[in-house]
Parts: sequence; structure tokens; C-alpha cells
Amino acid sequence: MTDHVYKMIDLVGSSKESIEDAIQNAIGRAGLTLHNLRWFEVVETRGHIENGKVDHYQVTLKVGFSLDDAAD
Amino acid sequence: MTDHVYKMIDLVGSSKESIEDAIQNAIGRAGLTLHNLRWFEVVETRGHIENGKVDHYQVTLKVGFSLDDAAD
Amino acid sequence: MTDHVYKMIDLVGSSKESIEDAIQNAIGRAGLTLHNLRWFEVVETRGHIENGKVDHYQVTLKVGFSLDDAAD
Amino acid sequence: MTDHVYKMIDLVGSSKESIEDAIQNAIGRAGLTLHNLRWFEVVETRGHIENGKVDHYQVTLKVGFSLDDAAD
Amino acid sequence: MTDHVYKMIDLVGSSKESIEDAIQNAIGRAGLTLHNLRWFEVVETRGHIENGKVDHYQVTLKVGFSLDDAAD
Amino acid sequence: MTDHVYKMIDLVGSSKESIEDAIQNAIGRAGLTLHNLRWFEVVETRGHIENGKVDHYQVTLKVGFSLDDAAD
Amino acid sequence: MTDHVYKMIDLVGSSKESIEDAIQNAIGRAGLTLHNLRWFEVVETRGHIENGKVDHYQVTLKVGFSLDDAAD
Amino acid sequence: MTDHVYKMIDLVGSSKESIEDAIQNAIGRAGLTLHNLRWFEVVETRGHIENGKVDHYQVTLKVGFSLDDAAD
Amino acid sequence: MTDHVYKMIDLVGSSKESIEDAIQNAIGRAGLTLHNLRWFEVVETRGHIENGKVDHYQVTLKVGFSLDDAAD
Amino acid sequence: MTDHVYKMIDLVGSSKESIEDAIQNAIGRAGLTLHNLRWFEVVETRGHIENGKVDHYQVTLKVGFSLDDAAD
Amino acid sequence: MTDHVYKMIDLVGSSKESIEDAIQNAIGRAGLTLHNLRWFEVVETRGHIENGKVDHYQVTLKVGFSLDDAAD
Amino acid sequence: MTDHVYKMIDLVGSSKESIEDAIQNAIGRAGLTLHNLRWFEVVETRGHIENGKVDHYQVTLKVGFSLDDAAD
Repeated sequence: MTDHVYKMIDLVGSSKESIEDAIQNAIGRAGLTLHNLRWFEVVETRGHIENGKVDHYQVTLKVGFSLDDAAD
Repeated sequence: MTDHVYKMIDLVGSSKESIEDAIQNAIGRAGLTLHNLRWFEVVETRGHIENGKVDHYQVTLKVGFSLDDAAD
Repeated sequence: MTDHVYKMIDLVGSSKESIEDAIQNAIGRAGLTLHNLRWFEVVETRGHIENGKVDHYQVTLKVGFSLDDAAD
Repeated sequence: MTDHVYKMIDLVGSSKESIEDAIQNAIGRAGLTLHNLRWFEVVETRGHIENGKVDHYQVTLKVGFSLDDAAD
Repeated sequence: MTDHVYKMIDLVGSSKESIEDAIQNAIGRAGLTLHNLRWFEVVETRGHIENGKVDHYQVTLKVGFSLDDAAD
Repeated sequence: MTDHVYKMIDLVGSSKESIEDAIQNAIGRAGLTLHNLRWFEVVETRGHIENGKVDHYQVTLKVGFSLDDAAD
Repeated sequence: MTDHVYKMIDLVGSSKESIEDAIQNAIGRAGLTLHNLRWFEVVETRGHIENGKVDHYQVTLKVGFSLDDAAD
Repeated sequence: MTDHVYKMIDLVGSSKESIEDAIQNAIGRAGLTLHNLRWFEVVETRGHIENGKVDHYQVTLKVGFSLDDAAD
Repeated sequence: MTDHVYKMIDLVGSSKESIEDAIQNAIGRAGLTLHNLRWFEVVETRGHIENGKVDHYQVTLKVGFSLDDAAD
Repeated sequence: MTDHVYKMIDLVGSSKESIEDAIQNAIGRAGLTLHNLRWFEVVETRGHIENGKVDHYQVTLKVGFSLDDAAD
Repeated sequence: MTDHVYKMIDLVGSSKESIEDAIQNAIGRAGLTLHNLRWFEVVETRGHIENGKVDHYQVTLKVGFSLDDAAD
Repeated sequence: MTDHVYKMIDLVGSSKESIEDAIQNAIGRAGLTLHNLRWFEVVETRGHIENGKVDHYQVTLKVGFSLDDAAD
């Protein structure tokens, strides 16, 4: 059957290394409790500055997962 | 008392039939676990194509429900 | 002469049946007093939910009409 | 290999019947010359009015197709 | 360690008094079940009218909280 | 019957006191000629400055009212 | 007294000559029935093409006027 | 039959003279290979500065043309 | 002469009291060095939460001032 | 070296003549103190109306200039 | 002569490695048939998730190229 | 005291290496004259293409800094 339903949640991941690493950190954390993550969309990229340098990146994501076989 | 609080969640419903059916599928699925759904807003309408035809519609919704008498 | 001027108004139509029906309801109501309606643009699609089902759709439209031969 | 590249084009489909039919008309026309259409996104929904009724719907879409095995 | 992950939820608070009070009502309600709320962003400000006066304000917020030490 | 139709108008209210007061001023003025106002949405908040202080707030609103029993 | 209230209406002006001329045409037409126009904001600039040339410009405006001494 | 399909392309025209001239330059160039151009929409207006003066305007357009009798 | 030129700067004001107070704090601070501030526009309203309550509001503004008689 | 850094400022230019003239007025004024202006982007086009005619145009621009050899 | 005309196309590039690699993959593919690519703008950054990790990034770009010496 | 005021400026950083490097270049340059930079937000990511490859990335940022102890 093809009438799938998905839920999307908003997460903010951070990393001192890179934008990609901040994305992966958010997804990795979400994956601890949600086992059917499917896709993400970057909503916003920000970061903190210390001593004239990027200290860490903060990336806001929407992450979608299937509700088909989830309790919720 | 009128100081109600609502929560909104993002859902994606799909349907081979119509945009309205995709909306209803998402709301029907959410209603299995949330019993006080009140309104929805369409955020995005997309779909998949196979053999030069629309195979199914995918509609992203925000769905609002009351937190007044909910556990959360 | 080609220097036409149009006015646009914001309407919200509703329908228990479909998005198209909500659009037509808004346009039909506007047509009772404005006889030179030309085009519409969908601004927002929302709706109310009752008992886990779409109760009715609410579609916000901009509707344009010619001022060329109108009193206002 | 997973490094796929897609191209998206902007189309406007129209129909006297419904929004879904306008979408399908645009996709059907594009499919005459592009054989690897994959997905669409609705950008705008408009329409023309005649005699106080919707005469036809006009739906602007972005349609994506794979460039992997296309000449261009 | 600085690789914090946050989740954001969408809430609508209402109040007969003021925009600030509607914001606080939403946050106060969320705080009953989430103990690590950090920040909010106002997404939309609306309200209902009765007898030609504002009856109550409705403020849609995104509210962010830390997932670092949360069950979810 | 539930196929209600609403019209929305754009108003700008101003006040030396507060954003809420500017909203109420716009709605109060509209209510002199429109007796079925239902809801408002804040579109923009601006203001004028004199001598380094806010002189007055200017709030742009969309205000919706029912056309069901209105002349127009 | 400084608690002024303004109303804004959406107009589309057209001209074969220029964008400025299309703006003036819309404002001139509105001025036939509204005598207290104050400001405008350009919302959209479009136009029609014939034989590979711009045939006329169409500019959508929001036009604001004072309600202080208006009947409506 | 009224089920027309249109395609829209993104062009950037430039001109040392005016915004209108930049629009016409883009449309004139597109008309060399596309003979059924119908309408345009301005997406963005930019320009380059030299010696404290506008050197040329750059206008980004969406240009629509009919696919009804086109090869593509 | 009417060919005025204005500059706009982005400020973030904060306050424990209210949104209006956060706006005034930003404008008051800017007024220490800029003596010809004219208007402001609210771009974003956010805030910090502590112990389930709004701790302070943060309002992002664009503030405009005349360059006509300014050194810069 | 190619790692250039640019700064962008927001200006509002006005003119009784045309949109292009308002743009040039803003850039001309900025050029009195900034000698390395490179490009501009139109953000908003507005204007004031007097006696049913456009009195003057107001164009909001972002203007970019190089920081490579600037004091700031 | 400075009245250049550019065309922009929408591409989606993907990569398992990084956002930059997804951008380069899209541009490299487009360069096989278009030899005068000039600039790109990132429109959207998304990606797919497998087993709680980013499987690949998908970056939507607008890519501009000169039409001055192109067949089309 | 918590009534901090921040100013935000718009910068464009560029780099042949990566998006992160373009961000750092803009922040590093700003830090030469502003010693209290706090955060940044990515507004736009663009780049130039040469010979079918990304030549350099251009990232537009808003950068915020405290005015509390600054001369301006």
C-alpha cells in the first residue's frame, strides 16, 4: 500500500567541525529514539563566534520519519 | 477559561487519488494517537511521477491540537 | 485602450467537499456584488478537523476584478 | 553509483476540471519529450473566472527529472 | 562537550491580556512536561475579535529545548 | 449551513502606548462600519522615532469578517 | 491626535510605457473615488509580451489611505 | 480546447539605460529562438556600480511561453 | 529638496519587561551616537526561557535614519 | 588572492523622477564616504502620494562594497 | 557591448561526501553540455538518511550561464 | 544587567576551499576592527564557476556583536 504518512520534527545540531557534522550530530541524536528516519531539510545555518573565530556551527533541520510502523 | 494552549505538528500525507485524500490520510493517521485535533494548514504540495503520470500526491501539513486536557 | 486598472480583494471560502468547491464558494459569493471578476490566486489552504476527519476546507484567495467600468 | 543529478523545469498546467487535472496536464505534456520525470512541487495555484465561476485552474509546478541517462 | 542537540516544537498560546501573556501561557504549559526549555521565536501573531474589540491574542511560537539529558 | 465566506482587509493602526493598543485602534475604527469582524493577523510592526524614543507604533493587520449576512 | 488608522488596498496598474507609468495609472484611477491616498508599496512587477517585445507592464501595488476623515 | 501548458524559464537581462531596457533585452534575446513568449515576472533587480554610479542594471525574470505548438 | 537618503541598521534589543521595552532599549542605545533616527521595523521577536518562564525578550529591528546632514 | 570580503549596507534613496533616479541618489550619497562600492540589490520599492499622484519614489537597496583595502 | 543576457537553470546535485561535493557534481554534469557556466546560488539543502546516518546530501542550485554566444 | 543591545552587519566572505572557510574569512576580516563578535547567520550561499568547476564560494552572513561596551 502506498498511502504512507510521515512526521517531521525540528532539530538543531551543533558542531565545532563543519556544517555536515552538525547535521549528522542532530540526526544521530534523533536516531537514538526514532528508528525510521528518512530525510532532512536544512532550515537555517547559524553559529557562535569566540575570539574572532567560528566556535561552533548550529544547523536547524526538519527531519522526516515514517509513521507507518511506529507507535507514534 | 480562555487561555488555551495548542501544539502543532508537521505531517506528510500521501494518496494516489487526490490532494484532499492525502490530507485526510495524514489526519486520520494522527488521530489514532491524538484525540483532540482541531485544524490544519497546508505547507507544501508535491508528488511522485511514474511513466509520465502523477503516481501519488504528497501534502505537508501543520496540524494543531489542544493541550488543555492532554497528557502532552 | 490598454491601461487597465484592476483591484484585488482577499476572500476566504469554505466547503465540506473539496478545495475547488471552497474556491468556487468564495468566488460565487463575491460575484453577487462584483460583476467583473477576472482571476484568482490561492494564498493559503487550511481547514477544520472534527472527530479525526477534515470537517471543512478553508481557502484564502486573492480575487482580481477590473475597475475600468466599475463605480469602484 | 549514487551521485545522481536532476534538473527541474517550471511548467504551468491548466484544466477546467480540478487542480489535480491541471497538474496532470502539465506533466503529461512534459512527458512527451522528457521520459525520466520523477517528482513535482506545486509553486502556485491560480485560475480564471468567467461569469462569476471558475473557468479554469492554472497550476505552476516545478518538475524534476534525472540527467543521468539523458542527452540533456 | 559542545555538540549539543536541541528540539523545537510549535505552540500556540492565547491570552485576553497581551501578546507577552500569550507567549508566557504557551511556555508555562510546555514547561509542565518539558523541564529544559531554552528559547522561543514568535512565528505569527493573530487574535479573535468580539463586538469590535480584541477578545484574545493567539501567538504561534517555536520553542527550543535541549535533548542532551532528555529521554526524548 | 457551513459554507461561510469571509473577506479580509488590510489596516494600519497606530498608538503611542503599545503594540496591543495599535491593534485595538485599527479594529475599533473598522468596527464603526463593519459589524461582523471575526479575527486579525499581524502582518508588520513598525514605528516612528522622535528624539531617540519610540513616538508611536504602527501595526499592519489583516482583519477578517463574515460576508454571510453583509451587504458586501 | 496621533492614533491614525489607515486602510490598504491592492491594485494592479498597467502601461505600455514604463513601470512608473503603470504605478501612476493605478494611483490615478484609485484617486477618482479615494481622496486621501498617502503611500504605495510595489508587490509584484509583471508584463505581457507580443512579438518578442514587452507589450505592457503590470504592477501590483498596495496603496494606503487614511480612514480618519473617510466615510469608510 | 483550453488545457494549455506553458513553460517558464529564468533569464537575467542587463542594460546601462534602465530597468525596462534590461527587461526588454532579456526578452528580445529569448525571442530569437522561442517564438511564442507570453508573459514575464520580475524576480530580482540588481546592478553593478562603477565610480559611485550605476554602471548597469541586471533584472532577473521568469518568462512564460506556450508549449501547445512548440517542439519543446 | 526632497531627494533624501536614509540608512538602515539592524539592532537587537532585549528586555525582561516587554516587547515594547526591548524595542525602546535598542533605539535608546542607537540614539547615543546617531541623532537623526526616524523609524523602525520589527524583523524578529525571540526570547530566552529560564525555569519555565520568559526570562527576557529579544527583538530584532531595522532602524532608519537620515544621511542628509550626517557625517555618515 | 581571491578570498575577498564585502560588506553590505541598507540604504533608502528617493526621487520625484523615477525608480532608477532614486537608486542613483542612494548610491551617489553613499559614494561620498565609501569609494569602493561594487553592486546593489533592490529590496523594496515604495513611494508617497500627494493629490492623487506619485510625489516621490523610495527605493530600499542593499549596497555591497569591498573591505579588502578599506579601513572598515 | 555590455547588454549581456544570462539564463538560469535549476539543478539538484547529490553526494555522499559533503555539501560542496554535491554542488560540484551538479555543476560538473551541467558543464558536459553547457560550456559557459558563470555562477550558482544554493536554493535548498536536503538529504537522505539511512540507519540513523546521512546517506547523501541533495543540494538544489540555480546555475547561470551566458546566452551571448550560445545557440540557446 | 540584562538589557543588552546588539548590532548586526551583513558580510560576504569568499573562499576557494569550502563554505565553512568562506564564513571564517568574513568573520576573521570583521574581527580586525570589531572585538566583540558573538554570532552569525547564513543568509545566502552562492559561488562563481570557471571551466565547469566551482572557482570559489561566496557566503552572505549576518554577524552580530554587542554594543554594550563598544564606542559604536
